[in-house]
Amino acid sequence: MDEQLLQIFEENTDKFLSGEQLSVKLGCSRTAIWKHIERLRQEGYVFEAVSRKGYRMISKPEKLDIPNISSRLTTETFGRHIRYFDEVDSTNNTANALVKEGGVEGTLIIAEKQTAGRGRMGRQWHSPKGKGLWMSLILKPRIPLHFTPHLTLLVAVALCRTIRQLTQLPAGIKWPNDLLIDGKKISGILLESSAEEEKLHHVIAGVGISVNLQAEDYPEEIRGIATSLAIEAGKEVNRSELLVHFLQELESLYKVYHEQGFAPIKLLWEALSVSLNKAVRTQSPQGLKEGFAVGIDDSGALIVRQEDGSLTKWYSGNIEFGASS
Amino acid sequence: MDEQLLQIFEENTDKFLSGEQLSVKLGCSRTAIWKHIERLRQEGYVFEAVSRKGYRMISKPEKLDIPNISSRLTTETFGRHIRYFDEVDSTNNTANALVKEGGVEGTLIIAEKQTAGRGRMGRQWHSPKGKGLWMSLILKPRIPLHFTPHLTLLVAVALCRTIRQLTQLPAGIKWPNDLLIDGKKISGILLESSAEEEKLHHVIAGVGISVNLQAEDYPEEIRGIATSLAIEAGKEVNRSELLVHFLQELESLYKVYHEQGFAPIKLLWEALSVSLNKAVRTQSPQGLKEGFAVGIDDSGALIVRQEDGSLTKWYSGNIEFGASS
Repeated sequence: MDEQLLQIFEENTDKFLSGEQLSVKLGCSRTAIWKHIERLRQEGYVFEAVSRKGYRMISKPEKLDIPNISSRLTTETFGRHIRYFDEVDSTNNTANALVKEGGVEGTLIIAEKQTAGRGRMGRQWHSPKGKGLWMSLILKPRIPLHFTPHLTLLVAVALCRTIRQLTQLPAGIKWPNDLLIDGKKISGILLESSAEEEKLHHVIAGVGISVNLQAEDYPEEIRGIATSLAIEAGKEVNRSELLVHFLQELESLYKVYHEQGFAPIKLLWEALSVSLNKAVRTQSPQGLKEGFAVGIDDSGALIVRQEDGSLTKWYSGNIEFGASS
Repeated sequence: MDEQLLQIFEENTDKFLSGEQLSVKLGCSRTAIWKHIERLRQEGYVFEAVSRKGYRMISKPEKLDIPNISSRLTTETFGRHIRYFDEVDSTNNTANALVKEGGVEGTLIIAEKQTAGRGRMGRQWHSPKGKGLWMSLILKPRIPLHFTPHLTLLVAVALCRTIRQLTQLPAGIKWPNDLLIDGKKISGILLESSAEEEKLHHVIAGVGISVNLQAEDYPEEIRGIATSLAIEAGKEVNRSELLVHFLQELESLYKVYHEQGFAPIKLLWEALSVSLNKAVRTQSPQGLKEGFAVGIDDSGALIVRQEDGSLTKWYSGNIEFGASS
C-alpha cells in the first residue's frame, strides 16, 4: 500500500493530490491515507499538506549510492562486496546467514532501515530509514578465540577516529565500545563470533551510527541518552563519505593489528577513551561492582582499582560513571 | 532397498534365504543382493552365508535404549532432553540447528552413526553405526567468552575419569583434549562456541568415543593411530552404561567449575595429562614450534619452555611429542 501511494506521488511530482482522490484510487478511507502518509513521513519522506488542496511530496529520503561508494573506496577487501538492502530485520542476522553460505572477509551488509536492530545485552537498536549507517562486516581474523575482545576495541577506535577526522566532533570511547559525544551515545557496536575450539571461524562486526537523526526521530525514552552526528554538528553529515572513510580506517587498523598485535591498538584506544581515571560501577550477576578505572590489560579487560587498593579486571558489562553513593 | 531386505530377514529369523529367492522378491540381481548384504555387514549386521543354502541373519547391531538410559540418569539437566537419531551428518550440526530453535542446556543429541562426523582442524571423524557414542551436548555456561578453553579441558577430564573408572584402562589426556590409550586415540572432542561480544551465547560440546570398533572397522590409514575401548579392553563395553556415567561425571565437574572456578579442573587435568614434562612440537602458521611442556596456565594454554629457557604459551594446535631433530 505504501508503495502504491508513493508511485502515485512520483507520477504526480509537484502536484497536490487530495485525500479524496487518493482514497478513491487506492480503494481505502481518507483516514487510512492519512495514516500511510504519517508512516512515510517517519521514513524520511517530506509532504506538504494544504487544506482543500491535499498533499504534495516535497522530498524523498536520501539513499546510499552504492556504485558511487564502491568507486571511491580504496580498500583491498573491506566493502569490496556490498549487499545493500532497503530494509532488513538486523544486518547482523543477514550477515550471519551470508557467512554460512560462504560470504568472504570484508563483505559489507548495509541497510537503509533495520526493523529489529540489536544492541549489546539484548537491547534494541533504533535504526530508522535513511538516517544512519546500519551495517555489518564479515571478518575472518587470523587470531585465536580469546583475542576477540581486541577486535571489539579496534572497531571502536576506527569509528571514533573517523568521526573525529570527518566532523571534528569530540567523540570518545566508553569501555568497551560505546561512542559518546558529551556523554550521549552516537553509535553501537556489536560483535558476534563463532569458533571451533580456539579457532575463530568468523566475526560479524555490527556497527550502527546515528548520522542524521533529529531529536524527534528518537523514541522519547532514549532522547536523553542518545544523540546523532547531525544534532551535535548542527548540520547533516554525508553518510556515503562517512562510510568510505570508516571502511578505510577500519581496514588500515585491522592490518596494523594483524602485523603488530594489540599494543598499537591499545595505545589508540586509551588515547580516545573517556572511561579511564574515573569512578566506575557496573551491575554483575553477583551484584553491584565499583571501583576506579585505571586502564585496560593486554586482553582488553578493564583494570579497576577497588576500595581496598587491590586491582580487579572486568571482562564485560555496561559501565556507568561515578560512585553509587 | 536395505530396509526391504532387512524386513525379509526379520520375517524369516533362523531361516536361510537364497540369493535367488531374494533377488526375485526384491526384483534385482543376485549381485545387487550380495552388495546390499555387504553394506549391512559394515553397519554391524552379522550374516551367515552357506553355499547352496543362502544367507541367514545371525544378529543385528545393538541400539541404544534411550528410555532405559533416561531412567538410569541421575543428572539434573545433562541428558534430560535427548534427541536420538539412527543417522545424522554430524551431531554438532544437528545441535547447532537445535540451539537456534531454543534447545535448552543439557540437551543431548546422539546418533548411532554419523555420515560426516567432524574432528578438530577440519578433520573427519569416523563414526560407524552402533560402534561408538557419537554425541553433542548443548551448554549455556555462565562464563565470559575467553574462558571457553576451560570447558574444552573440562570435557576431556570428565571423559578420561569416566573411562578410567568404568574400564580401568590407562586413558590419558593429550593437550588440549585428545584422549589416548598407549599413544592411540580413543575419542575426539570438538567444542563450537557462539558469542555476542564477551557474552557466551552457547557451546556445543561434540564428543565421539570409539567404544566397540574393531581394527577392521577403521579405515586403513588411521589403524596405526586409532584404537577403541573394546580393542584395548579385549571385550565389548556397554555403551549405555558409559553414556550414563559420562553425563553424570560431566555435569558434576561442570557444577564444580561454576562454583569454584578453573583451579580444581586444572588440577584434575594435570593429573590425567600425558602431555606435560615432555618435549613437544607443533606446526603453526609461522612454522614449526618446539619446546618442553611444563604446565598449563589459568586460561588453559600450554606453557612451553623454549630452548633459550624462556617460557611461551601455546593456545591451540595439534601437538606431537619428541623433538624434531
